Amino acid sequence: MLLSYTREHEMYRESLRKFLQKEVEPYFREWEKDRQVPREVWKAFGRQGFLCPWLPEEYGGSGVGFEYALILIEEMSRADVDIPISLHSEVVVPYLYSYGNDEQKRRWLPGCASGDLITAVAMTEPDAGSDLAALRTTAVRDVDTYILNGQKVFITNGWDCDLVIVACKTGNDPKPHRNISLLVVEEGTPGFIKAKKLNKMGRHTEGTAELVFEDCRVPARNLLGQEGKGFYYLMEKLQQERLIASMGSLCAAEKMFQEGLEYAKTRRAFGQPIGSFQHNSFKLAEMATEVEIARTFVERLVMEHIQGRELVMEASMAKWWVSEMANRVAAQVLQLHGGYGYMEEYPICRHYQNVRVDTIYAGTNEIMKSIIAKRLGL
Amino acid sequence: MLLSYTREHEMYRESLRKFLQKEVEPYFREWEKDRQVPREVWKAFGRQGFLCPWLPEEYGGSGVGFEYALILIEEMSRADVDIPISLHSEVVVPYLYSYGNDEQKRRWLPGCASGDLITAVAMTEPDAGSDLAALRTTAVRDVDTYILNGQKVFITNGWDCDLVIVACKTGNDPKPHRNISLLVVEEGTPGFIKAKKLNKMGRHTEGTAELVFEDCRVPARNLLGQEGKGFYYLMEKLQQERLIASMGSLCAAEKMFQEGLEYAKTRRAFGQPIGSFQHNSFKLAEMATEVEIARTFVERLVMEHIQGRELVMEASMAKWWVSEMANRVAAQVLQLHGGYGYMEEYPICRHYQNVRVDTIYAGTNEIMKSIIAKRLGL
Amino acid sequence: MLLSYTREHEMYRESLRKFLQKEVEPYFREWEKDRQVPREVWKAFGRQGFLCPWLPEEYGGSGVGFEYALILIEEMSRADVDIPISLHSEVVVPYLYSYGNDEQKRRWLPGCASGDLITAVAMTEPDAGSDLAALRTTAVRDVDTYILNGQKVFITNGWDCDLVIVACKTGNDPKPHRNISLLVVEEGTPGFIKAKKLNKMGRHTEGTAELVFEDCRVPARNLLGQEGKGFYYLMEKLQQERLIASMGSLCAAEKMFQEGLEYAKTRRAFGQPIGSFQHNSFKLAEMATEVEIARTFVERLVMEHIQGRELVMEASMAKWWVSEMANRVAAQVLQLHGGYGYMEEYPICRHYQNVRVDTIYAGTNEIMKSIIAKRLGL
Amino acid sequence: MLLSYTREHEMYRESLRKFLQKEVEPYFREWEKDRQVPREVWKAFGRQGFLCPWLPEEYGGSGVGFEYALILIEEMSRADVDIPISLHSEVVVPYLYSYGNDEQKRRWLPGCASGDLITAVAMTEPDAGSDLAALRTTAVRDVDTYILNGQKVFITNGWDCDLVIVACKTGNDPKPHRNISLLVVEEGTPGFIKAKKLNKMGRHTEGTAELVFEDCRVPARNLLGQEGKGFYYLMEKLQQERLIASMGSLCAAEKMFQEGLEYAKTRRAFGQPIGSFQHNSFKLAEMATEVEIARTFVERLVMEHIQGRELVMEASMAKWWVSEMANRVAAQVLQLHGGYGYMEEYPICRHYQNVRVDTIYAGTNEIMKSIIAKRLGL
Repeated sequence: MLLSYTREHEMYRESLRKFLQKEVEPYFREWEKDRQVPREVWKAFGRQGFLCPWLPEEYGGSGVGFEYALILIEEMSRADVDIPISLHSEVVVPYLYSYGNDEQKRRWLPGCASGDLITAVAMTEPDAGSDLAALRTTAVRDVDTYILNGQKVFITNGWDCDLVIVACKTGNDPKPHRNISLLVVEEGTPGFIKAKKLNKMGRHTEGTAELVFEDCRVPARNLLGQEGKGFYYLMEKLQQERLIASMGSLCAAEKMFQEGLEYAKTRRAFGQPIGSFQHNSFKLAEMATEVEIARTFVERLVMEHIQGRELVMEASMAKWWVSEMANRVAAQVLQLHGGYGYMEEYPICRHYQNVRVDTIYAGTNEIMKSIIAKRLGL
Repeated sequence: MLLSYTREHEMYRESLRKFLQKEVEPYFREWEKDRQVPREVWKAFGRQGFLCPWLPEEYGGSGVGFEYALILIEEMSRADVDIPISLHSEVVVPYLYSYGNDEQKRRWLPGCASGDLITAVAMTEPDAGSDLAALRTTAVRDVDTYILNGQKVFITNGWDCDLVIVACKTGNDPKPHRNISLLVVEEGTPGFIKAKKLNKMGRHTEGTAELVFEDCRVPARNLLGQEGKGFYYLMEKLQQERLIASMGSLCAAEKMFQEGLEYAKTRRAFGQPIGSFQHNSFKLAEMATEVEIARTFVERLVMEHIQGRELVMEASMAKWWVSEMANRVAAQVLQLHGGYGYMEEYPICRHYQNVRVDTIYAGTNEIMKSIIAKRLGL
Repeated sequence: MLLSYTREHEMYRESLRKFLQKEVEPYFREWEKDRQVPREVWKAFGRQGFLCPWLPEEYGGSGVGFEYALILIEEMSRADVDIPISLHSEVVVPYLYSYGNDEQKRRWLPGCASGDLITAVAMTEPDAGSDLAALRTTAVRDVDTYILNGQKVFITNGWDCDLVIVACKTGNDPKPHRNISLLVVEEGTPGFIKAKKLNKMGRHTEGTAELVFEDCRVPARNLLGQEGKGFYYLMEKLQQERLIASMGSLCAAEKMFQEGLEYAKTRRAFGQPIGSFQHNSFKLAEMATEVEIARTFVERLVMEHIQGRELVMEASMAKWWVSEMANRVAAQVLQLHGGYGYMEEYPICRHYQNVRVDTIYAGTNEIMKSIIAKRLGL
Repeated sequence: MLLSYTREHEMYRESLRKFLQKEVEPYFREWEKDRQVPREVWKAFGRQGFLCPWLPEEYGGSGVGFEYALILIEEMSRADVDIPISLHSEVVVPYLYSYGNDEQKRRWLPGCASGDLITAVAMTEPDAGSDLAALRTTAVRDVDTYILNGQKVFITNGWDCDLVIVACKTGNDPKPHRNISLLVVEEGTPGFIKAKKLNKMGRHTEGTAELVFEDCRVPARNLLGQEGKGFYYLMEKLQQERLIASMGSLCAAEKMFQEGLEYAKTRRAFGQPIGSFQHNSFKLAEMATEVEIARTFVERLVMEHIQGRELVMEASMAKWWVSEMANRVAAQVLQLHGGYGYMEEYPICRHYQNVRVDTIYAGTNEIMKSIIAKRLGL
């Protein structure tokens, strides 16, 4: 394919694969049932250098490129485990690194790399899904603290996080985009309430939570970057977030396709492998095609993202198309399994439920299409 | 619409609706969590005359028409509860009534109508999904018993049933269709093992189970109809089973559409109801159309089924098309809900999981298309 | 199906079928090449009573029901000929009948029934597709004439018409819907210019034209109904127009499906009929299903339309869904034909081109969805 | 994108663009109406070095890479002209170059590069579409000639060709693939009959014809490669043929998308550009995405094809997916145009008709899926 890997990449992949086999796979189904991943697991990831490997060494990383993020997602998918490591390493921590001052970076980044600090980012609110202008969470400055009030929903890692970056209103500019700031709230801060762990259709190990802030006093030194710039910071980081999302959907689709192919070759009906029925073989050929096309597209974007290209439109394209494709693959592979596909013990059953959120999170696909349309000048 | 109802129908519907509101709805979410409906509930349905109302009065029924089956499915759907009453009343019991001899009918039918006997039908086997010719369960005649050996999967009501009609091989005719017989196995018969309650993606109150028969001695007087005629009996009843399935998918689609419409009118984003966005309004218009078209088609088939028309092709058409449509509606309404659609507490989340099996059970949609193709002379 | 026919219906159908076989089919391919149907043909239809058979006998009709419109469309489709008789009989002439005064009716209706007067209705303008409020054609009253100026496009029968009902602005009410009136313009009126016969992808015998009115003086007695009521008249007649459109799409889909089925049974590849390949057989089964569902829906609407029910939403549903379905069938049947499907001499090639306009004319499918959404309260 | 161009590429593109503007565009609509491109045009292409530029200089080419084939297709598409140059240069002539002996190459290749010899390849027969094993055209050796008998259909360039490579049976090996040979038949050979120019839905300038061979004596020295190896030769060249096909579909899709985008920005309805309606903007965003994804995939394959990779599966994937995508784009852009989309004078109307064959020629999409399925081990 388009990306080419060196011996270092392969060694990283190899050690990650072994780690997952030994430390994660044997326990994962249990954690899934408990809907909770032990904290110790994060630290094990950290010890092995699998968290934020892109961070400079001074902060505990290895200074490697973004392609390592793809390797991680690929191997997690291959191992069929689901821990929101990428969200932490590639979506949240980059805010701290890009917009944090030196003191903040020294304070937080090493813990992010070691797994001592699990992070989350809190944008979505009950009454403002993708509409940042409608944000209701407010932070009022009082001497050297901000008094934070508001409610956030659907926060991945929310239940487990030690640090959460909260998007909040700190001003009343008539242009609503100028009012948003990012505050880092630390676990244990009075008034920071992990209100409710959410029960979802799938992805039970993501610690998705509702967070409440009630007169929560956040030290002013926890402000990330400048006051009123939060909207622009969020915009700048969306490209990578969407890429990460599309990489996840891609690997899920590949995994499910492989399950379907395997099943089609081994399961027999009417005296022959079910994959020999023309209908099934065409469906698999179609899935193989779409998975291949998606991988080519995602790898191209990863390459260009590493080169520093602006890819807002292309990343939005990848986000919606690959996530829809993954859902098509899920539905077709499940169908191929007949009654077994509906049984929780079959992987495709869980995957079908897991990928359903891909068209919704990280900006709904409708938002993606709006962004593309705007870029087209419509 | 096409069906027209009398005052009797409306009274039945009214009393059913009240019954569900009082006796079922308040407890149903709990049963769903327990993955078990109390037996007492079946008896309550029976006491009210909601089980097998089509049975002649001598057997405890009311001798009413098949349209009452639709009323029941509609009201269960409206109440958002899911108990496999229709499978019992409209799919299994008809075998007993049509092929049972007088003694069998007197022995079993009153219990079926009262809820004392819960029934199931066991066709599918681990290695023979829809392929009856590949059946491996055998029944060997030994004086006045059959010695039954085999395994059945995906048996709705299997965990709770008092009677199960088992499709098994009783001969070795070179034409495999002539070897199949139907045996009624009663709960408590030694060697009849309810091996495993199956964990499924949804429909957690259906008592779906794996059944095992190990040298299970079934009295020969429990043979249903004639030996070797089982295949033909099964074929004869498939029309009604598929109609029942399509009625279920239709009502699920209608319910989900209503949820989507309601949500689109009340939920706001970017300062307006989300239903006012053209994309959403078109999706809802498309769903409204397909739901309306499906209802028209299903009602036509119900009418003609009551008139006794042979509808094997048309019922197969309804089965696949309506179940696929219901899954489209599920996916679109869930998407409309954004993140909330992925939360278990929202009805659409459960419905999305529930309807997934509709394209698989009662004959997969691929089987339906094969049947239609055959009827077309292909 | 739902509609039931009497002996009178069957006799009408029979004589129509014979007429088409003898008078139309042998010449039709030639007319299609010439892109012109001889006027004499219209008169032949009229002589046989096939034009406006619903008109009262005093005006030259037979006073029959709307189901005769379906019979005509079915038989035209079966004969594979395409003359815009239904537009004349069921769409345009009803305006004259419903809104014309006695004098107008006596003047025009007999000619409409005999085929001496071919009619058209002119709504669409180059810059106002489906948006009647944006109409630019104006009619200014001058004593006993209206001076008509404007341009109309895509007017079926426009090239051949003797009478055209023109939607035009006659006022300046701030509510634009109150400004529209309907004027009947007669062929030969100075300033009424048949500007251009349009070359379309298909439907070459419909005489679709661009019409221009340059200071065209239309006698005031040619005003249809009241001044300023045109919008409401148009709205009232849309239900029937859309039904007619969906009946046309339905019959086209049925015809194409039959062609596909026939071809699949007779054409051989790799040593077997191509219909025996599972992929093809599933496609045909899917088409058979959608055609059957569509017929059921359309027949229900025809029944209810005859009963006088308001069906604006349902007719809009039928219009968009059946026309999209017909295009799916066209694409699949053409594909089934392989290279032959692309050859003009094969019927499917022409049909593919003909049905493409079905999603556009009589209100685009997007307009249909907007209407449905509005009715849903969105 | 993935391919990077040098100054030489850009100069080639520039001179080609000017040539098309001056020599082809002004006349093309006329040729399309005549359904015939003058021979002189081919020679003009040849004079400018636009035919077979990949041929070594000794044969009249420039020895350039396969990416020049993409440049040609892009520029032809941009100029909206359709002459089967690529079929000649990139599909047929490669047979002569790869399998011809020195004498044949010297005899034919210079004419192919100059435009003096127009070429075609004749595989398909009336009763053997994609099934080479069912070939009925036979060539019987008689001293130093082959006596060729048979019929070929759908031969692009067939009407105009000076040389046609004919796949025919020369043996009776029980393995039918070993019986096929390739004979080069020259225009003017007695018994070589250009039987009929085919009237197609679109692509009117491709000279598609039915060819008949009646006791046609072809000199044995016109045998291409070895007797009985034809099947393998054909297989070897399919990768490039399918790539060429997918490149054509891609460029058509891009062209149509641009037409749609342009139209959506300029055409107004209900007081605003139609591209500002959310439904339209989402459709355009979806098309933009699929076009971008397709381009990425095709460019990757072009790159790897140049590197000499075996890409049979990937080229088959590109062929079916891109051609279906192009047809989706065609249907949606046509719909966006409303009534104008159905008028022949609008480019989208012609393009809709032109791309319809893309899912059929160069191996139907069903054949592509069969190939992929085989490669997947199904």
